[in-house]
Amino acid sequence: MAPILLNHMGNEEDEYIKEQVQVNNPNLDTMEEDILYHFSLSTKTHNLPEMFGDIKFVCVGGSANRMKAFAQFIHQELKLPGNPGDVKDICEGTDRYCMYKVGPVLSISHGMGVPSISIMLHELIKLLHHAQCRDVVLFRLGTSGGVGLTPGTVVITEKAVDYSFRPQFEQVVLGKVITRNTELDEGVANELLQCSSELQTFPTVIGNTMCTHDFYEGQGRLDGALCSFSQEEKLEYLRKAYEAGVRNIEMESTVFAAMCRVCGLKGAVVCVTLLNRFEGDQITSSHDVLVEYQQRPQILVAHFIKKRLGYII
Amino acid sequence: MAPILLNHMGNEEDEYIKEQVQVNNPNLDTMEEDILYHFSLSTKTHNLPEMFGDIKFVCVGGSANRMKAFAQFIHQELKLPGNPGDVKDICEGTDRYCMYKVGPVLSISHGMGVPSISIMLHELIKLLHHAQCRDVVLFRLGTSGGVGLTPGTVVITEKAVDYSFRPQFEQVVLGKVITRNTELDEGVANELLQCSSELQTFPTVIGNTMCTHDFYEGQGRLDGALCSFSQEEKLEYLRKAYEAGVRNIEMESTVFAAMCRVCGLKGAVVCVTLLNRFEGDQITSSHDVLVEYQQRPQILVAHFIKKRLGYII
Repeated sequence: MAPILLNHMGNEEDEYIKEQVQVNNPNLDTMEEDILYHFSLSTKTHNLPEMFGDIKFVCVGGSANRMKAFAQFIHQELKLPGNPGDVKDICEGTDRYCMYKVGPVLSISHGMGVPSISIMLHELIKLLHHAQCRDVVLFRLGTSGGVGLTPGTVVITEKAVDYSFRPQFEQVVLGKVITRNTELDEGVANELLQCSSELQTFPTVIGNTMCTHDFYEGQGRLDGALCSFSQEEKLEYLRKAYEAGVRNIEMESTVFAAMCRVCGLKGAVVCVTLLNRFEGDQITSSHDVLVEYQQRPQILVAHFIKKRLGYII
Repeated sequence: MAPILLNHMGNEEDEYIKEQVQVNNPNLDTMEEDILYHFSLSTKTHNLPEMFGDIKFVCVGGSANRMKAFAQFIHQELKLPGNPGDVKDICEGTDRYCMYKVGPVLSISHGMGVPSISIMLHELIKLLHHAQCRDVVLFRLGTSGGVGLTPGTVVITEKAVDYSFRPQFEQVVLGKVITRNTELDEGVANELLQCSSELQTFPTVIGNTMCTHDFYEGQGRLDGALCSFSQEEKLEYLRKAYEAGVRNIEMESTVFAAMCRVCGLKGAVVCVTLLNRFEGDQITSSHDVLVEYQQRPQILVAHFIKKRLGYII
């Protein structure tokens, strides 16, 4: 149940609402209960404003273990009371996603690919709406294949682009394809780049991120169960991507950007590159190197959060 | 490393190979090592023929917990030595997927959506190829929304269809869209229907399965964070789907069917319906009812496996 009816408002309340997380679905206001099925939460069984009303930063990423590690890391960084090891999965009633709350920060896993993150985002945006959250910034912290970058470089996404390098996301609605814009918030991206130059720990760039719907054929990998193209054709495709400003490839950014825009949420995509796709397809770095790479987006976003909260001036 | 070079063969060997799991990628034969990254397995660090060479049935499903439960269930059903509770995750080096081996049965989770299952299928098919497996049948055991069926009905998929009810899967390869056929194996489907009539425990039908790329707008749900259509428009879309033979909606079947066909694997999709979409969008059944529903595809496929192995005559 939505706490405020958008239709019954004057200008002053409009301003107030503007900063709230917006859903674009009039039906939600008339539902007696909203079951967020894949979170195993509901407006009837959980007091969402009490549980989540103070959330200001939502960080999402594919791997459940990584998002648990991020929750523990941000707990330490914010010097919150209690033991970081005690963070508890709020979605323990389901294994679809996991969710940890650490002060004003929510850390959630979203699995791999656009459909998987899309389910999570629908339910997250409804959750933030039901909880009457305001001024929320949303981050995707991910891993990716780099395009012409040294492995370990962090890419802050300017535009999320599709397989033809267009900044758009195609969404099917009742059998019809509609397209949505996938430009991300410029201010947050620049603030993140500024954080990186303050940290001076790893290379960071702003660039376009290509979002594909698979890891092998769609990304031009030569090592899948299916491959019908040559090394030269692969490299030509990657060169075209590079010319279109693409600096990394992952599998969730377009729908993330599109849903942030439609719902008036400021969003950023921050992915580390695990390899340079011009040089290969397989991820051959050692476990320890990969673990260190995966911490880089976390370190960057933690710095951003600490600055916003006034921990760093 | 492929154990046999397809190019160097006579007719007799062709027949032998035919029953082996086929990859469609000549590059695999020339790779020194193949890292199945999302399984945390590799041809160099693991003896895949020894670990997996006897696999005859592969069962996949979205949820990690459910696929662990299935592994324990099939362990009991096949009366194998040892404690079913001791099944061990072969992919414990990663949290992307989990994998359990129980005699000739492999049980693997694939997450939600086409991209997530597609990564798993590429690496699974390479694994079966490297392990020199033969005569493998692949099952997807899932949950779904029903279209005009009593909740709890099990649907065996005849054709996996897209949002326009076409039996095809669109795959992007180096920026170009190609389409693949998504008809499933008729023999296995009929054998499964026969199993259901022997069991007489729950209603089972053969029908088409619509595969969408999200859970809300693409499936015509009125309860997402975004909704731009009316109840009447939703129902009209579902009616059209029903007329096209669609009996359930889920999010993985088209790529599953397409990859099975291309790689010469016999595959079947067996999903239970958790609700009737003509009657609502939210999944409101109790936890216990949902758990019982989710066991139905497992019971059906376990019966199939036991018949094939000669446990039931």
